[in-house]
Amino acid sequence: MSLAPILASRSPRRQELLTTILPEFSIQVSAADETLPAGTPPDEAVRLLALRKASAVLALQPAPGEALVIGSDTVVSIDGRILGKPHSQEECLEMLQLLSGRRHTVYTGVALLRGDRQRVFHEAAGVEFWPLSPREAGWYASTPEPYDKAGGYGVQGLGSLLVKGIEGDYFTVMGLPVSRLWRELRSFAPELFSF
Amino acid sequence: MSLAPILASRSPRRQELLTTILPEFSIQVSAADETLPAGTPPDEAVRLLALRKASAVLALQPAPGEALVIGSDTVVSIDGRILGKPHSQEECLEMLQLLSGRRHTVYTGVALLRGDRQRVFHEAAGVEFWPLSPREAGWYASTPEPYDKAGGYGVQGLGSLLVKGIEGDYFTVMGLPVSRLWRELRSFAPELFSF
Repeated sequence: MSLAPILASRSPRRQELLTTILPEFSIQVSAADETLPAGTPPDEAVRLLALRKASAVLALQPAPGEALVIGSDTVVSIDGRILGKPHSQEECLEMLQLLSGRRHTVYTGVALLRGDRQRVFHEAAGVEFWPLSPREAGWYASTPEPYDKAGGYGVQGLGSLLVKGIEGDYFTVMGLPVSRLWRELRSFAPELFSF
Repeated sequence: MSLAPILASRSPRRQELLTTILPEFSIQVSAADETLPAGTPPDEAVRLLALRKASAVLALQPAPGEALVIGSDTVVSIDGRILGKPHSQEECLEMLQLLSGRRHTVYTGVALLRGDRQRVFHEAAGVEFWPLSPREAGWYASTPEPYDKAGGYGVQGLGSLLVKGIEGDYFTVMGLPVSRLWRELRSFAPELFSF
């Protein structure tokens, strides 16, 4: 039996990062319910959303036992609030102002589904922002970069200039904890790896 | 008077990172003395080597007052030892074994020279390695990746799979602290920036 890995994410960052550990995989995305009960903690939120995204794609497989679906979700958490993607320049500027000169936490959840087996985990990383001047925030919000990213910034690219330092895994902040995922996948789907 | 930025480094990582903040610059490298007095602490070592690399390139300029030279140097420090680039697979495996399952510190120094003005700074970041099995270390040492990198690994690419987490600036580990450099350059050479 061959096992076909499927990434259940549209994110180009996740696609790029997954190539570090898997030479071949396909990408499939299916609509998943992204509503959460009020007050869901961020670690539970990313695990639940990663699982829903992966489950929606597994349900489309004609042979679910031969599919390995990888779902993932990332949120930014600060002051007990969860920040998703900004929908306007105004909302992006509000997020950047909230993050400016302070530390927040990024959570990324990952769900691995294979037939009726599943494994779900998450990683958290702290991110400290430089204090941002209004010109710096305005410049960044005028680029296309923030608008497909949780919290209104990317830790790579131009967004790297906003970040003073991190505590934890850089790729968790980027959206996929590849070094942990590599270790989980080698035990969850060993036939995909030579060691 | 126009100001021509010059990066005094062969590292493709530094070249790529510098494009985040400077749209145009040239690359020039000149031999600099890389010997250090025994017992030089790692922070002094990277500042001194960054300055020597930049000074060697500034000395080649016909109009030093119109040049802005950026020099940089990175070392890995663990147990009071400084690790440079590995020269053989055996030396690379020794370095990986030393780093396995532990935390080390990466220092990157930067020197900015412009005519008779200079500014030198450094950043340090902690890096925690996953415990590496002999197969993992052997696999990584068999790739071309470690051999042009201080400490025998790169924090990006395949080397990302060895790293559990960092504390500090990711780009300091990669070899150029771009977010700090952006802030230093805007005050050292404000005419290169619109704000």
